[in-house]
Formats: sequence, structure tokens, C-alpha cells
Amino acid sequence: MNPTHDDVSDAPFLKACRGEAPPFVPVWLMRQAGRYQAEYRAIRERVSFLELCRTPDLAAEVTVFAVRQLGVDAGIIFADILLLLEPMGAPIAFNKEGDGPQILKPVRDAAGIDALVADVDVGATLGYVLEAIRKVRAELPKVPLIGFAGAPFTLASYLIEGGGSKNYVLTKTLLYKDPGAFRALMEKLARATVRYLNAQVEAGAQAVQLFDSWAGALGPEDYREHVLPHMKAIVAGVRPGVPVVSFGTGTGAYLGEVAACGAPVIGVDWRVDLGEAARQMPASVVAVQGNLDPVTLFGPVAEIKRRARALVDQMRGRPGYIFNLGHGILPHTPVDHVRALVDEVHEYSAR
Amino acid sequence: MNPTHDDVSDAPFLKACRGEAPPFVPVWLMRQAGRYQAEYRAIRERVSFLELCRTPDLAAEVTVFAVRQLGVDAGIIFADILLLLEPMGAPIAFNKEGDGPQILKPVRDAAGIDALVADVDVGATLGYVLEAIRKVRAELPKVPLIGFAGAPFTLASYLIEGGGSKNYVLTKTLLYKDPGAFRALMEKLARATVRYLNAQVEAGAQAVQLFDSWAGALGPEDYREHVLPHMKAIVAGVRPGVPVVSFGTGTGAYLGEVAACGAPVIGVDWRVDLGEAARQMPASVVAVQGNLDPVTLFGPVAEIKRRARALVDQMRGRPGYIFNLGHGILPHTPVDHVRALVDEVHEYSAR
Repeated sequence: MNPTHDDVSDAPFLKACRGEAPPFVPVWLMRQAGRYQAEYRAIRERVSFLELCRTPDLAAEVTVFAVRQLGVDAGIIFADILLLLEPMGAPIAFNKEGDGPQILKPVRDAAGIDALVADVDVGATLGYVLEAIRKVRAELPKVPLIGFAGAPFTLASYLIEGGGSKNYVLTKTLLYKDPGAFRALMEKLARATVRYLNAQVEAGAQAVQLFDSWAGALGPEDYREHVLPHMKAIVAGVRPGVPVVSFGTGTGAYLGEVAACGAPVIGVDWRVDLGEAARQMPASVVAVQGNLDPVTLFGPVAEIKRRARALVDQMRGRPGYIFNLGHGILPHTPVDHVRALVDEVHEYSAR
Repeated sequence: MNPTHDDVSDAPFLKACRGEAPPFVPVWLMRQAGRYQAEYRAIRERVSFLELCRTPDLAAEVTVFAVRQLGVDAGIIFADILLLLEPMGAPIAFNKEGDGPQILKPVRDAAGIDALVADVDVGATLGYVLEAIRKVRAELPKVPLIGFAGAPFTLASYLIEGGGSKNYVLTKTLLYKDPGAFRALMEKLARATVRYLNAQVEAGAQAVQLFDSWAGALGPEDYREHVLPHMKAIVAGVRPGVPVVSFGTGTGAYLGEVAACGAPVIGVDWRVDLGEAARQMPASVVAVQGNLDPVTLFGPVAEIKRRARALVDQMRGRPGYIFNLGHGILPHTPVDHVRALVDEVHEYSAR
């Protein structure tokens, strides 16, 4: 859509984050810069995933390109949730495709947790992310830019398991056997995350999102006891006035707990009835973000549009709605389908 | 526990399935016969997973052994949800560990679906399962025996994807692009499943469970439209008076849809608040089954007991409660922890 605002703070995405009524439903898409784009793949022919993250010019380029190619209402800085683990003392590695991340020295006991650095000097160690943010802001001054971080449970699981996991046996076993050590780990991650998010805000990000991809491995009681306090600490620590989006997957059966973190925007995955989720939210939540099944984008365009319209209809009359997928865009997703989705959300919701 | 009943139909598990109050909370555990047991592994040294399934003496032996070793209140016949696909026309294979199943000729279009056999002659093709059931019944006449089948969405996904899947892109794409073909596939699977379950009942199973391990890949609307009608057809097709347990994973955000199939018992995974789930159930549901996180069994015994008691307390005063895990027992689970769990549920709930 052509900008309808002179000042970025009046952009539809930021209005929705404040619960104000924008002229149309703003839309951005998780992993909107990624392998599904030929231009992204061309850059990745030249540099590894981590090099891309660490080269501000390139990270800014793919961030800006996605915004322009898709016509979305917000950018999200190109980075990875695990980058923060390195200055904390846990080096990471990625396979060639940029997935299958590995923690080279997993952290599995109190001694390993003690050795982690919480008071990360973000400027000195993750300055490349901040530099990329500044570049995107200069390039797209009227488009809101989202900073982000991994939520502490997801980061803790990576640290403990050493990589991806099916059952999170090591993570949960630590939680059962040594809840004090687990709490210490979560507190360190939360502290480091607050510093990281505020540095991104300082550099120009106008909103921040927490990604809790793995929180859904826990039941509601474990979430309440072992995750929620740390989510609250992060939300409370982010600079006042900056909207925080809390997004988790697989947590649809206990969204009330998830929303209790105090974040004004809650992102939900596609396994949730969006209207029902919105109705269940506490008063602290001014906007809901989600939740088209990312696989929908492999279907016929007419079906994509039908499903997009159904979501917009479900949320009509609620100012705080941000259209998104229920998870990240998948590799091999047809780009023209993504563009058709964005256009449909804009056109249909503006009526 | 020592039998408290002369007739198997008065067994605590079957009482709970009817919503009657048993003297203690009955317990059985998904995958209670499996790799975590040394005795099971010893048998698997000699035969492959499929050979074990297809040898009635051995399938009966591991089924009975689990009941005796753990002191649980029901057996579940040792078999695999994919066995039914073979007589339907889709040969299967397993890797050495007995997981990572493969469909040798995936079914991805209308022609493939047309070629599938729905009216399976269960006696002629899966007689080994029926024979194993008869053997278990003869060996444990006072212990209820559960028959089972895969739910149609899970079976359809295996058929279409050709094995396990992360995103179910092929399955969902078929559903979007050719909903008629997808429905025909689901109808065939449902018809074959009804025949299979009733043959198990005929052979002596006193209850049957549907496993929908993958239904949680769908959002609530797709579940309602593309899965629920077929679940209803199966529940309606099972011989009257035989309790059907419907268990799914990842469906906690739309349990109302899941419970609408009409099954009297709903099994829930560990991501759900058990008491809240029970309160939400429609009147057709007389019992709820679940839902301890299987990873809990790796924790300290005191913590296992504490969590088991918390579930029993949540369900106190509700007759229809069957204790189970929220998913199958994992490999490497300590057997003595499993026994401690079963004992605790019995002793604590009998007070």
C-alpha cells in the first residue's frame, strides 16, 4: 500500500500495536526475508547464514528487499534468535541451509549456567545487528521496523539440548531435578534479552517481538511456573512505550498464561481460532497478531484469499489486529502467492 | 492392584469409560509395551518391529508382560496404526528401531485414492492382530484389553507424505487443491477403520482407541470441516456399547471440535490443563484420559508422584477419569519410575 502516514509512528502497524484503528489491517509475515525468495538465495550463494546475519549491509538489504517485494507494513530485522547466545558464552553453528543450528558446548548444569554472561555488551558484541537496524531505518524511514529476540525458554532449550529437539528430555529433566539452576538460567537469558531488545530499540526498532518457538513443549503449569515470570521480566524491562509482541507456537491451549506476560500484542499460531483467542485476551492485550497456516500459501490463490478474508472478517471491528502467518514462511513458498496474500489483506480490509 | 472385580466388565477402566465411579483411578500408559523395557528389547533383538506385530504369540507376550510388569488396569494390543494401510493397498516399511515408518508408494492423487481398498477383509489380512487379541484375552481374562487404530487424518498424512513430516505440505496442499479427493480418501480410511475396530472388538477387545497423532497440524476450521465428519462416522460405526477413546496431540486449542465426534472418552495431551479440559467437554463425553507429560518420568520419583497426585486431585469427584500420559512412554524411560507412577495413582486415588 502507498504510505497513508507522514510520520512512521502513525503507520498502520504501530497504530494497531497501540489498539488504535488503522485505515486497513496491517500485515507482515514471519520469515518474510528468506529462502523462498530467489534474491535471498542468490545472496546465500555467496555467504553463509551467519555471515549474512553479521554483515550489516547484507542483513539490511534482505530486510528492505522483503518489505519492497511484498508491500508489507513492517520490516523485521534479518537476524537469528541464537545470535545472543554467543556473547553470553555459547558459540553457535549452522548447517549449510541455515537451519539445524548447533550449540557447540551445550549448557547442562549449574556450573555451565554460572559461566554464562548475562550483562552482555550488546554494542560491542552484536553491533552488527544494531548497524543493520540503522541502515534499514535510513532506507525505509516510513516503514516500522521490528527488532526481535528468542524467548528465554526457547533459548534455554537450545542451550541445554545443544540444538533442535523432539522431546526436550534434557531441558525438562534439568527443570525437574534442579529448578533453581533452571531458574538461574532463565533469569540470565531474560536479563541479556532485555539489554539486547533495548539496544535494538535504541538503534531504531519501533517494536520488538519475542519468539517462543518451543514453549509449546511445556504444559500450562510448567509454563506458568517456569516461563511466565521471565517473560514478565522481559516485557517490564523493555523501554516504556515500545510495543512488545509475544509469539509462541503450540501454546494455544493456554493462551491465557501466555498473555499474562503483559505484552500489548500477542501473536498466535494457526492451530487457534483467532476470534476466540482475541475474546479470551486480558485487558492488557490491545492487539492480536496471526494466524494463517503458512502451508496455505502452497494452495490455490483463490483459497489463500478466501482464508485471508475469513481472518479479516473474524477480527472486523477490533482495531488491534495485525495480519500474519501462524508461523514463518516455508521454503519453496511461491512468492507471487505471498504477494497476493498481502494485497488481499490490504484491499479487503480497507473496504 | 489386585483385581477388585469378578467380571471384566466391572473392571475400573471399563467403569470409568462408562462414567461410573471405580474404587480407584484406573491407569494405563500409551506405549506401555515398548523399547524402554529390557524384555521388549530382548525380543526385538530376535525379530523386526513388523515381525513382532505379525507374530501373535509375541505380540500377545509383550502386551501381557507390560500389564503384569506395571500393574496397569488395561492392556492395549501390541500393533501399529499403519498395519491397516497394507491391506488397503499401501505397503509399509520400518527402520531398524521400529520408528521412521515409510509408505513405499505414497498416495497423492485421485487415481491413487481410487485404487485404495476400503472394504478390507480384516480376518484374512490382519488376522494376526485378532489372533493376538484372543491370546491376550485368554491369558488375562480379568484385565480389559484395548484395541486401536490410527485416526484417518494421521493415516491420510502418512499415505500422502510417504512417512513422517514436519509441515504436512503435501497433505494440506491436496486438501486445498482437491478437497473432493481428500474427502474420498478420508471416507475410505474411515470405512476401513470401522471394519478393523469391529473385528478387534469381535476378537475380544472391550474398548478401542483412535490415535490422531498428527491432527494438531491442522487449525480448528480445517479440523471441523475435513476431519470431524470422518471421526463421527467411525465412532458411529463401532459396535454399540463399546467405549471409544479419541486421542489426539496438539489439538488442545480446539478440544471442543475434537470432543464433538461423539466418543465417550477423550484423551488429551500434556499441553492442556486437565481440569479445564474436563469442564469444557460436551455431555456426550463421560470420561477424560490423560495427561502427564511423558518426560516427567525422567525426573525424580518424588516429582513424578507429586505431579501424578496433582492430576488426580484435579479430577477428584469426577467418576470418568482414566490416568494416562499425554503421549507415549519414551525410549530410555526408567521402568521403576513407571511402576512408581502406576502405584502412586492407585494408592493416592483410593484414599
